[in-house]
Amino acid sequence: MAKEREFVKEIADIDTDFAQWYTDVVVKTQLVDYGPVKGTMVIRPYGYAIWENIQRELDARFKATGHENAYFPLFIPYSYLMKEADHVEGFAPEVAVVTHAGGEELAEKLVVRPTSETIICEMYSKWVQSYRDLPMLINQWANVVRWEKTTRPFLRTSEFLWQEGHTLHATEAEAKEETIKMLKVYEEFAKNVLAMPVLIGQKSEKEKFAGAQETYSMEAMMQDGKSLQAGTTHFFGTNFSAAFDIKFLDKDGTHKNPYQTSWGVSTRLIGALIMAHGDRRGLCLPPYVAPVQAVIIPIAAFKGGVTEKAQELFNALKNAGIRVKLDNSDASPGWKFNEYEMKGVPVRIEIGPRDIENGVVTCSRRDKTGEKFTLPIEGLAEKMPALLKDIHENMYNKALAFTNAHIKTVNNLNQLKEAVDTGNFALGMWCGCRECEDKLKAEMQVTTRNMPFDQTPVGDKCVVCGKPAKKKIYFGRAY
Amino acid sequence: MAKEREFVKEIADIDTDFAQWYTDVVVKTQLVDYGPVKGTMVIRPYGYAIWENIQRELDARFKATGHENAYFPLFIPYSYLMKEADHVEGFAPEVAVVTHAGGEELAEKLVVRPTSETIICEMYSKWVQSYRDLPMLINQWANVVRWEKTTRPFLRTSEFLWQEGHTLHATEAEAKEETIKMLKVYEEFAKNVLAMPVLIGQKSEKEKFAGAQETYSMEAMMQDGKSLQAGTTHFFGTNFSAAFDIKFLDKDGTHKNPYQTSWGVSTRLIGALIMAHGDRRGLCLPPYVAPVQAVIIPIAAFKGGVTEKAQELFNALKNAGIRVKLDNSDASPGWKFNEYEMKGVPVRIEIGPRDIENGVVTCSRRDKTGEKFTLPIEGLAEKMPALLKDIHENMYNKALAFTNAHIKTVNNLNQLKEAVDTGNFALGMWCGCRECEDKLKAEMQVTTRNMPFDQTPVGDKCVVCGKPAKKKIYFGRAY
Repeated sequence: MAKEREFVKEIADIDTDFAQWYTDVVVKTQLVDYGPVKGTMVIRPYGYAIWENIQRELDARFKATGHENAYFPLFIPYSYLMKEADHVEGFAPEVAVVTHAGGEELAEKLVVRPTSETIICEMYSKWVQSYRDLPMLINQWANVVRWEKTTRPFLRTSEFLWQEGHTLHATEAEAKEETIKMLKVYEEFAKNVLAMPVLIGQKSEKEKFAGAQETYSMEAMMQDGKSLQAGTTHFFGTNFSAAFDIKFLDKDGTHKNPYQTSWGVSTRLIGALIMAHGDRRGLCLPPYVAPVQAVIIPIAAFKGGVTEKAQELFNALKNAGIRVKLDNSDASPGWKFNEYEMKGVPVRIEIGPRDIENGVVTCSRRDKTGEKFTLPIEGLAEKMPALLKDIHENMYNKALAFTNAHIKTVNNLNQLKEAVDTGNFALGMWCGCRECEDKLKAEMQVTTRNMPFDQTPVGDKCVVCGKPAKKKIYFGRAY
Repeated sequence: MAKEREFVKEIADIDTDFAQWYTDVVVKTQLVDYGPVKGTMVIRPYGYAIWENIQRELDARFKATGHENAYFPLFIPYSYLMKEADHVEGFAPEVAVVTHAGGEELAEKLVVRPTSETIICEMYSKWVQSYRDLPMLINQWANVVRWEKTTRPFLRTSEFLWQEGHTLHATEAEAKEETIKMLKVYEEFAKNVLAMPVLIGQKSEKEKFAGAQETYSMEAMMQDGKSLQAGTTHFFGTNFSAAFDIKFLDKDGTHKNPYQTSWGVSTRLIGALIMAHGDRRGLCLPPYVAPVQAVIIPIAAFKGGVTEKAQELFNALKNAGIRVKLDNSDASPGWKFNEYEMKGVPVRIEIGPRDIENGVVTCSRRDKTGEKFTLPIEGLAEKMPALLKDIHENMYNKALAFTNAHIKTVNNLNQLKEAVDTGNFALGMWCGCRECEDKLKAEMQVTTRNMPFDQTPVGDKCVVCGKPAKKKIYFGRAY
């Protein structure tokens, strides 16, 4: 119990101070540190390894759906931002501006990209001439800068890492199909890689991306009942392609503006998976993005054979493609147990003299901390993929049950407030008016999250104003 | 011959105008385009795919040598740059500066990183306390900005992509060992992945990195006889760790500044491999970084069975892990031949009705353009790795022979000038004085490249001033 108390004091209590718990966890597990410039973060090796795993999984999905990667410049002429009216209104207030370079004042100020629609459209206008050049299916992995007043590591930082897909299509139908297709790629990825259930749907006019005609999002429920917008896809129509004079000669011999989409997810996803899966002991990392999937801890390592057997097991697991770590340090086993629990390693493997005698190891799953079980050393490497899969599925099912248990169908404003105040999403009907959204925001810091594709009504009146309802929508507080 | 003329007119003659040939090749093969801001480039999918292959190969080598990736912020407080005297002198003139963000003027100007020693040292000073925290072995993949007066795609651009390794060590010997180890990792990578021979050695005081105690480089010979510095590693001693007050408690109970290294290669490598291997027809890409390793071109595709057989072959090659493209477009085979020769695809596979009858395909290697040979369709996929390896080795040997043939040992200034003027590196003795380097630079735009590890003398007097020689060094013109 002494050990337990010592451990728990390192991070705030998840039940009483979720915000502080999050901050403690991300810093103390060395995922991240604060950069010297306000609002910036340093992604430390343990955090960056999660991002590398996210990148590898997503990148494979983007390529499988026909996209190629490219790289566009960081600096965008200020004038580009002005070309699409909604876009400039949305982004101008939060850009960082370069005014001097090479020892001289620049003739035109440069914006550090907050997103790349404008500069990519400028290039597309040079590259696209004919319907044969379409679809244009390009993705970029990059850093972007948005100067934010209130920042938190991963969730909202002045600079973050992301991917942004930017596509052009000959027809509206094809562009809309792409917008939904990539939303579903994100959803599948969240489920099968992050073990994180998400709610997909369309954003309201108020909440859509600056310059888009339609925005779709995936919303993930955090354990405090708040929503985290974990990815978005946008249909632009021809807003940007007209503004940037992108034209193609279509099969019918006429020149047309192509239809455009963009879609992105960011290092925010790391924040999402922490808050979706973590517990009072710290991180609980989904196996398919965990930097270390299994840690081997020798017990009584001074006894003959233990170190050798642990190393042998490490080699076997490594050769089987498992991301495995052997902790041979002279810290106590108890300290190591706490450390790797806090760091969210999915599987702990203890190996001591008695285990070796019995031909087994003693295992513990991070998703079921406290339960121990033994497995034969023989064939352990071959069993690991199934074990990791089972942990993944258990984590997904737990998060799904939590999400489902915290969606309350509501019929009026009191119910909505009650639901959100007690840590839930509210699902209800909405008249479609911005006034109702403004009222929710002002009075209870609640926003519309998105409109699910299944629009089976749960009532006929707007839960805010009582007027005839047009849409079923999720309401909630959000990160 | 008509086709040949038509093709050749697209790119300038490599023998008479190497510079224009380079520009034509990088733009017309769609590796790159010019960004809207002066000196910036857009790396298009075909170019970016080369970078992805470079990244994957290098990253595996960094991890195998114990390094982890992390990500540090883009923006560095201006004051950080001032902390190391040589560093600020080297970089201050070419930085881009952010003065405004979020609609307000910033209290302290921010530098867009030209390199990350300063901000990384700031973080290391928080992370390193004890000898147990060493070595610190971190690498970063990132974009950096250096405002250059004269720019060329890949070779010198205002913004470029690179990796920068930054390590801290308890002892001087260990840091020096790291500096040489990573230089050799680069050399091995250049040879085995880029098929590019390089000359490794130490830079002169004049040519070393701003703030380093020792800089090492790999220099690659381009086909115009000029040198391209393709990668560098630096030993800093405790210059930065003292300036940033990084201290560790050593085993002997005293506090010490750790010893530091950094090392980097950039998208410049893409320029290097183009100029090392290209020919009058365009690119000649080394197989292990080529985005497309083999292209299948159906001949008389309208005839029964050709399209199906081509698709079948495509599937077999793809399943065997070959980066293969099937060009089913309605362009003529002749047009396609030129296109993929210009784009430097290592292997072309033609498949037509007669080939199918004979159970073969007609192949052509880009490194031996003009020669055709047949291979049985049966088992072709299994033969591809050996074929690609042979192409790689042939390209390496060709480049090595070229390099060796263009290194002239020189004994005096006239011989040095003659050697360099006729497209060679000059290898000669040097007194070690900066005055001689300044004279070479001013009079003939020649710089010292590096001092090979094998210092067996080739004379005893400085080829520039005639005074007693201290070092054997390569001289040359450089990109």
